[in-house]
Amino acid sequence: MCELLGMNCNVPTDIRFSFSGLVERGGRTGEHRDGWGISFYEGRGSRTFHDPRASIDSEIAELVRGHSVKSLNVICHIRKATNGRICLENTHPFTRELWGRSWTFAHNGKLKGVKRKPLSFYEPIGTTDSEHAFCWLLDQVRTRFPKPPRSPRPLIALVHELALELNELGTFNMLLCDAQHLYCFCSTHLTWLTRRAPFGEASLIDREMTVDFAKETTPKDIVTVIATHPLTHDEPWTIMERGSMVVFEDGVVVGG
Amino acid sequence: MCELLGMNCNVPTDIRFSFSGLVERGGRTGEHRDGWGISFYEGRGSRTFHDPRASIDSEIAELVRGHSVKSLNVICHIRKATNGRICLENTHPFTRELWGRSWTFAHNGKLKGVKRKPLSFYEPIGTTDSEHAFCWLLDQVRTRFPKPPRSPRPLIALVHELALELNELGTFNMLLCDAQHLYCFCSTHLTWLTRRAPFGEASLIDREMTVDFAKETTPKDIVTVIATHPLTHDEPWTIMERGSMVVFEDGVVVGG
Repeated sequence: MCELLGMNCNVPTDIRFSFSGLVERGGRTGEHRDGWGISFYEGRGSRTFHDPRASIDSEIAELVRGHSVKSLNVICHIRKATNGRICLENTHPFTRELWGRSWTFAHNGKLKGVKRKPLSFYEPIGTTDSEHAFCWLLDQVRTRFPKPPRSPRPLIALVHELALELNELGTFNMLLCDAQHLYCFCSTHLTWLTRRAPFGEASLIDREMTVDFAKETTPKDIVTVIATHPLTHDEPWTIMERGSMVVFEDGVVVGG
Repeated sequence: MCELLGMNCNVPTDIRFSFSGLVERGGRTGEHRDGWGISFYEGRGSRTFHDPRASIDSEIAELVRGHSVKSLNVICHIRKATNGRICLENTHPFTRELWGRSWTFAHNGKLKGVKRKPLSFYEPIGTTDSEHAFCWLLDQVRTRFPKPPRSPRPLIALVHELALELNELGTFNMLLCDAQHLYCFCSTHLTWLTRRAPFGEASLIDREMTVDFAKETTPKDIVTVIATHPLTHDEPWTIMERGSMVVFEDGVVVGG
């Protein structure tokens, strides 16, 4: 199994505090040693750093941890390989273009028989069940909506329906971003937290590190963090129910 | 205008020597200060580092320059913006998936009216003429070959035909990779060089740096480097003719 981390905000925000906690699970406090990846959005495009090596040993993780990249949407994944060998092609997040936007996807879990689902438009580059699921999901979205719908509601309803269908094949904890919305589907474990004024302090669970967000933010900032398991021990994380989805835009819930 | 750098080899090879010369042109010996990007292939997938900042000031360029990434195919681009603002979405190389392979593309030049060419399958994420040209080119390849052709010849002929059509709109120096072949089209400036046994020394033009490739290689290695202008002053670069294309696989010419 793997661990997921996502962020969605109304102002470009630095994810390094949460990322620092997550990478510890990539070999030190957790067993997710089989690669990691992170996608940062800038506008409709995204920038992805992939490394098939453990995040705690990764020079690229060191670069990401050492430098401020501010973004409105981030998806990050650390991998414990269960399906597909350890290589770049099999390292999440996966990315495809639809409607002139970069879509990124990361998955935690295992899906039995997902490769029997036929694909038309998008094809996997690697061999994971996860990338096949992503290609299938995006195929369905593209078929139903050749152009982006005016209201996000029917799109959100479709993504939820597709996630439930995939979830029937096993475990499907998912983070998906279309450059604007962050879709979070909970199959077994997913939790989220919104930070907004008045901001306070937070301390990581996986390493000794405390941040006073009052010093890092403005009163208008709204920052939501999504993770497989809570990353801090002094904040009120919402544990999602199995089968539920929540969608964020500008840091707030817009559907689910 | 921009500068291009490509590499195609029969063994995974480190591009740092050539890259070190190129990044100097990103603000020091050249005026290409408006971002840079590099894509390294691993199998059918690719890993891209993008930075909208000048390569000589870029921490990501420092990372790439400082660590060995060995690859069979590399495409690199440093940008002097002529069309589209400076931002991540407009930073080459661009990437799309076709036939379960990652295709990457970088362009030097300007194409007048290219946005009037209709698109069906792929859409640009940014606003450059280059990305529109890439989407159109890949649309044509996909339409003609819904599945990869058995022989590369008709594909190479099609890419050459499409490149010539785009070239009629202005200047179209192009590097394109389908995870196996590296297609190099010369509109005005493109040059290439193959290094093979017996290997010797080479010295960069843009900074004081000399490598003895005999110490870095085995007798079986074949490494071809493609660049807008020669990167070394003591090797026999082939200057391509205008309108010509050359295609490399495993370091050797397979078509054009």
